[in-house]
Amino acid sequence: MSRTNKIESAEESAVRDLEPLFCPSSIAVVGASRRAGTAGNEIMRNLIFGEYAGVIYPVNPKAKSILGMRCVPNISAIDECVDLAVIIVPAPAVEKAIVECADRGTRHFVVISAGFKEIGGEGIKREKRLQAVAAERGLSILGPNCLGIINTDPAMSMNAAFGGDIPQAGCMGLISQSGALAAALLDYAHGRGIGFSRFVSFGNKADINEIDLLRSLAADNKTKVILMYVEDLSSGQQFVETAFAITRGADPKPILAIKTGRTQEGAAAAASHTGSLTGSDEVYDAIFSQAGVLRIESVEELFDLAEVFAEPSLSSGRRTAIITNAGGPGIMATDACIRNGLQLSKFQEYTLKSLRFQMPPTGSLKNPVDVIGDAKHDRYRAALDAVTADEGVDQVMILVTPQAMTDVKEIAGVVCETKGFCEKPIVACLMGDVDVAPGVRVLKEHGIPAYQFPENAMRAMSAKCRFAEWVRSPISDYRQFEVDRKAVDKIFADESVAGRNQLVEIRALQVVNHYGFPIVPYKLAESVDEAVEAASEIGYPVVMKISGPTLLHKTDIGGVRLNLTDESSVRTAFDEMIHSVREKMDDKVEIWGVVVQKMLPPGKEIIIGMSRNERFGPLLMFGLGGIYTEALRDVSFRLAPIRNNVADEMIKDIRSYRLLGGVRGEPASDVKAIAECLLRLSQLVTDHPQIKELDINPLIVYPQGRGAVIADARIILSETE
Amino acid sequence: MSRTNKIESAEESAVRDLEPLFCPSSIAVVGASRRAGTAGNEIMRNLIFGEYAGVIYPVNPKAKSILGMRCVPNISAIDECVDLAVIIVPAPAVEKAIVECADRGTRHFVVISAGFKEIGGEGIKREKRLQAVAAERGLSILGPNCLGIINTDPAMSMNAAFGGDIPQAGCMGLISQSGALAAALLDYAHGRGIGFSRFVSFGNKADINEIDLLRSLAADNKTKVILMYVEDLSSGQQFVETAFAITRGADPKPILAIKTGRTQEGAAAAASHTGSLTGSDEVYDAIFSQAGVLRIESVEELFDLAEVFAEPSLSSGRRTAIITNAGGPGIMATDACIRNGLQLSKFQEYTLKSLRFQMPPTGSLKNPVDVIGDAKHDRYRAALDAVTADEGVDQVMILVTPQAMTDVKEIAGVVCETKGFCEKPIVACLMGDVDVAPGVRVLKEHGIPAYQFPENAMRAMSAKCRFAEWVRSPISDYRQFEVDRKAVDKIFADESVAGRNQLVEIRALQVVNHYGFPIVPYKLAESVDEAVEAASEIGYPVVMKISGPTLLHKTDIGGVRLNLTDESSVRTAFDEMIHSVREKMDDKVEIWGVVVQKMLPPGKEIIIGMSRNERFGPLLMFGLGGIYTEALRDVSFRLAPIRNNVADEMIKDIRSYRLLGGVRGEPASDVKAIAECLLRLSQLVTDHPQIKELDINPLIVYPQGRGAVIADARIILSETE
Repeated sequence: MSRTNKIESAEESAVRDLEPLFCPSSIAVVGASRRAGTAGNEIMRNLIFGEYAGVIYPVNPKAKSILGMRCVPNISAIDECVDLAVIIVPAPAVEKAIVECADRGTRHFVVISAGFKEIGGEGIKREKRLQAVAAERGLSILGPNCLGIINTDPAMSMNAAFGGDIPQAGCMGLISQSGALAAALLDYAHGRGIGFSRFVSFGNKADINEIDLLRSLAADNKTKVILMYVEDLSSGQQFVETAFAITRGADPKPILAIKTGRTQEGAAAAASHTGSLTGSDEVYDAIFSQAGVLRIESVEELFDLAEVFAEPSLSSGRRTAIITNAGGPGIMATDACIRNGLQLSKFQEYTLKSLRFQMPPTGSLKNPVDVIGDAKHDRYRAALDAVTADEGVDQVMILVTPQAMTDVKEIAGVVCETKGFCEKPIVACLMGDVDVAPGVRVLKEHGIPAYQFPENAMRAMSAKCRFAEWVRSPISDYRQFEVDRKAVDKIFADESVAGRNQLVEIRALQVVNHYGFPIVPYKLAESVDEAVEAASEIGYPVVMKISGPTLLHKTDIGGVRLNLTDESSVRTAFDEMIHSVREKMDDKVEIWGVVVQKMLPPGKEIIIGMSRNERFGPLLMFGLGGIYTEALRDVSFRLAPIRNNVADEMIKDIRSYRLLGGVRGEPASDVKAIAECLLRLSQLVTDHPQIKELDINPLIVYPQGRGAVIADARIILSETE
Repeated sequence: MSRTNKIESAEESAVRDLEPLFCPSSIAVVGASRRAGTAGNEIMRNLIFGEYAGVIYPVNPKAKSILGMRCVPNISAIDECVDLAVIIVPAPAVEKAIVECADRGTRHFVVISAGFKEIGGEGIKREKRLQAVAAERGLSILGPNCLGIINTDPAMSMNAAFGGDIPQAGCMGLISQSGALAAALLDYAHGRGIGFSRFVSFGNKADINEIDLLRSLAADNKTKVILMYVEDLSSGQQFVETAFAITRGADPKPILAIKTGRTQEGAAAAASHTGSLTGSDEVYDAIFSQAGVLRIESVEELFDLAEVFAEPSLSSGRRTAIITNAGGPGIMATDACIRNGLQLSKFQEYTLKSLRFQMPPTGSLKNPVDVIGDAKHDRYRAALDAVTADEGVDQVMILVTPQAMTDVKEIAGVVCETKGFCEKPIVACLMGDVDVAPGVRVLKEHGIPAYQFPENAMRAMSAKCRFAEWVRSPISDYRQFEVDRKAVDKIFADESVAGRNQLVEIRALQVVNHYGFPIVPYKLAESVDEAVEAASEIGYPVVMKISGPTLLHKTDIGGVRLNLTDESSVRTAFDEMIHSVREKMDDKVEIWGVVVQKMLPPGKEIIIGMSRNERFGPLLMFGLGGIYTEALRDVSFRLAPIRNNVADEMIKDIRSYRLLGGVRGEPASDVKAIAECLLRLSQLVTDHPQIKELDINPLIVYPQGRGAVIADARIILSETE
């Protein structure tokens, strides 16, 4: 039961307690400096002026004091065991500094210093030694090559970072692999008035990685929304499990992630066979999707979404009402609503009645509600009261353009009041900049998401809707089929003994057969008579394929015959095939015989497969056959093992999904049968880590209720050393 | 020669001189008001405090003075002929006010008053009377239901609009159909420090429409970039020709357009036949593409692009260099570069050498150049000098994250200096908000486009690149084929006399044959013997189809036989078909005979067609056959007549274009033959406006050099009244 194994292994990697990192009662700043502009000085300034609640020990053998605070020459001179050491000494001295602190009992470290993995050569060795020290002594090390750590909790008020202003307190927990970007993010947030609970720049993640930090942010009750910027992930399934637990737990927290490097691999992946379709960025898409993490494309989108997620109400659906004081912007909002996958609410009769009574005759009562350019806050209030009370409205967008009569600030006030008793999400879009600024301020003070542009507002609202749906959807199980795992182990062991990496077709078919996949009926016939007997048993028409341990490219050597309809053609085919293969290969080539298979009736051709990603494990693939997979690259990926519902998602994810629904009078395909194959595949490749690649191509799918059948399978095992 | 007709007709609609509208030496404000907050007061304030250079005449029978300016009771009391009258009286009084002014010689009007078409009923009649007055008396009327007009030229300094602050002078010409949005746009621009040359809110466009205004902005030498917000266009081909002349003229000006209502029609267009695929939004895409107008999706994008277009340098290619002081943001910029269709420059050896000499050892010399977090302006200067001198660099993006040592303002200064002598476009992305603000200010003062986010910067740079390519590309001609136009006129006349709208296949084939389309060889056989003779002449195998004036759905009535290989099967088929048709239809149904066609060898099936859009004229369609057109809706559109190169564009526009390039070992298809068919189609439907719909389905295309052949055509004519 591999799934259980997986979860155990995740639990094994002991969930470490990083609280002392965020809430130390004392901090040694090793490498504190008097020189302005240096990290060693900036961190001292930030700790002191940020009014850190604990004790600060600046460590500097050359300075007597820094910012009025008396220095100690070295760590041994401190008369207590400090909880956290921030290390800012040159790279070659970092290890020694850590060891000295550890000798005195310190267990948590933030290494700001650069000059490690990122510079290559000696730096890589240095970083490995850091890892070794952490492991040997049971230390937690953040960094190296990072900006530091911030905890805005008033009880702690710790800003042990440099390169940015002290952020205001708030509900965002941010972790960033890039230090420079982290600094920029703080500045953006400052401009937009977004506050943070905790902020971590984790740099090279020699020891503490994004998974440790996610767990720690999940446990922090000041953090309501988790933002992350990553350039890579340290693991696949473990990330999926950790993030899934956070986004689907008892108190679900959204995780918004920027992962860069989207295009690089995509461009490189030129060839079109299954293996090379798995450009690593597609792995990340799969991982984020399975983990319930919202993948964000830009910093602007990150903050747009952060703002809407900071407001805790979750909508119960996609039905959206728009209230506007101008027609054109109303159309823009409608466009944005639909394009972001939301729906326009259709108002109930009582809502229309109420609006008719309160709106001017030239206003539009239908959604979007147009309160007309001369609307003041009272008319907005009437419209807002009416639509929020409508049972067909899940969420509301208020759109305001600054016109001659518009009292922006008062309208913002009305929105805040309404939000006070309304559980439905409300976002505001105040179109403009300078004129609408007073309204924006009022909204932000009350935690109402406010945007400049309707597109950004709708995009954010849509993301939150999708998160609400994710949170609401039932947690799907990992389906376990009755399979003959041992028989497959035996086949792999045999192949391994025989020194073969690629299984011949008949062996591959046996493997999938043991895992309950629907396969086409076949028999291995060693003689002409056996072939005739097999054919009549299976039923005509049949297909015949040569079989032998070294016979892989059967078509090229004349080893495949299709659509044989009677005994005499089977007899002729058998002899001709044997003859052709001996001629094309070698007279002494080992031939096991001829596989006689039922000739399958035509159906839709599907490809499913797996290639094992070195870092992330088994990556499942699904696509339609032929040009759809090869030329149009229309495939979907997920990391195995997959939950039940994920198989369905994989199928729906491809762009040409509707072709399975039945077009041009064709019946709909049996997608349930495909989903079951994906789940069986997930179990097979999770049970047997030695499978390196597996392709089922084609899986022939028939109309609904009539199943799917594997016509061919290819399995490649890892090289055993 | 319809093209010539078209152009003449465009010229006929006399290019009107709107300069007096923008540069009046005197203005009467009819309906000027003392009451604050009213349009009649705001416009007076804006004219006066905007320091309008001409004479203002407030017209108000009840007030003695407004803002210290003496009122006249009515227009007759003015002792000169005013150039422009701004009308702000209630809707029912507007016509009378205009007539009075016109009687006194005024020719140009801005009607601010609402209460016309937009309110329906009486308003529509009122607006029609306005149009009639304008036509009868040769007046130019802007509006009604608009915000007004602004000309920031210091020689005029006219702000005859209400609902926004007076914008700063600049090079943007803005026209907006929505008044409310126009006000918001002014406010956004104010916040971003973007200046306008001219600003027009044109409201209901009873008289002056967007085409008149485009021409007028094109002629204004203060306007360098044209921004437009429209909810619909008044015409198709005329817009294409006007905008084409502006974007491709001697002094090309970019036009950036927001057209809302994208999703509405799209959702409505559910059915899958050619006609209903032409949702009107796709018409707009076609029109903008042919006109060289950049279609913009959001207000934010509009201003992002406006900023980059305000700087006049045009790049000579897509090769882009990125200079950054941080790795992570560098990756984001790279992603954005590739995703926006730009390329990363590969540096020349001399550039790398220069960088190697001047950058720190840990910096990255490859593109993106990483000058490292501690870089100050001198290092940026060195990098900028090196990459701008590289012949493989067409444009540069400077990326700055605010780090401890970063001197943002000085770095901005370096960019400005470099831009002083460098002709390549340079855009800056200063990541952050508050910390980077001083740098942004410096850049804006020097006209360097500056962005907060790399995605926005790259999107803008990419749009400008595409415009540069548009401007550089040779102007393609309208190809005219030798055709037998009269023969087609005759066929249509005959069909019209016979009272038929839908041409039977044989007639449709004759039409396309007269226009030189490649059609499959066929004969109409009236007897069995003639059919046999025809078949042997054409060559077996053949296809046979019943033919008669009312026989349209031939397959349903047993009127089609495929792949007939010899005389006896032709004989049997003929008799059976006649029998079946008489049985299924009526014994007396008129049968002309049987069409005998060559059975075409298999090739790629293509659909080309036209449906005539009521407002915009003939819309050409291209798509692959089968599921690609019907289920995947993968089609492209253009308005006829099309230039030579547009046929190629249409073909390349579909998502599955690569299937024509030859995939899975297939040869590439003869796209030249398809393009020629599109051009012939363009000529056919332009020559014959009575064609309402035309489908060529399938057009069977063979490998390169082997042409394409029409197997079937369907033509529907307009109902003649």
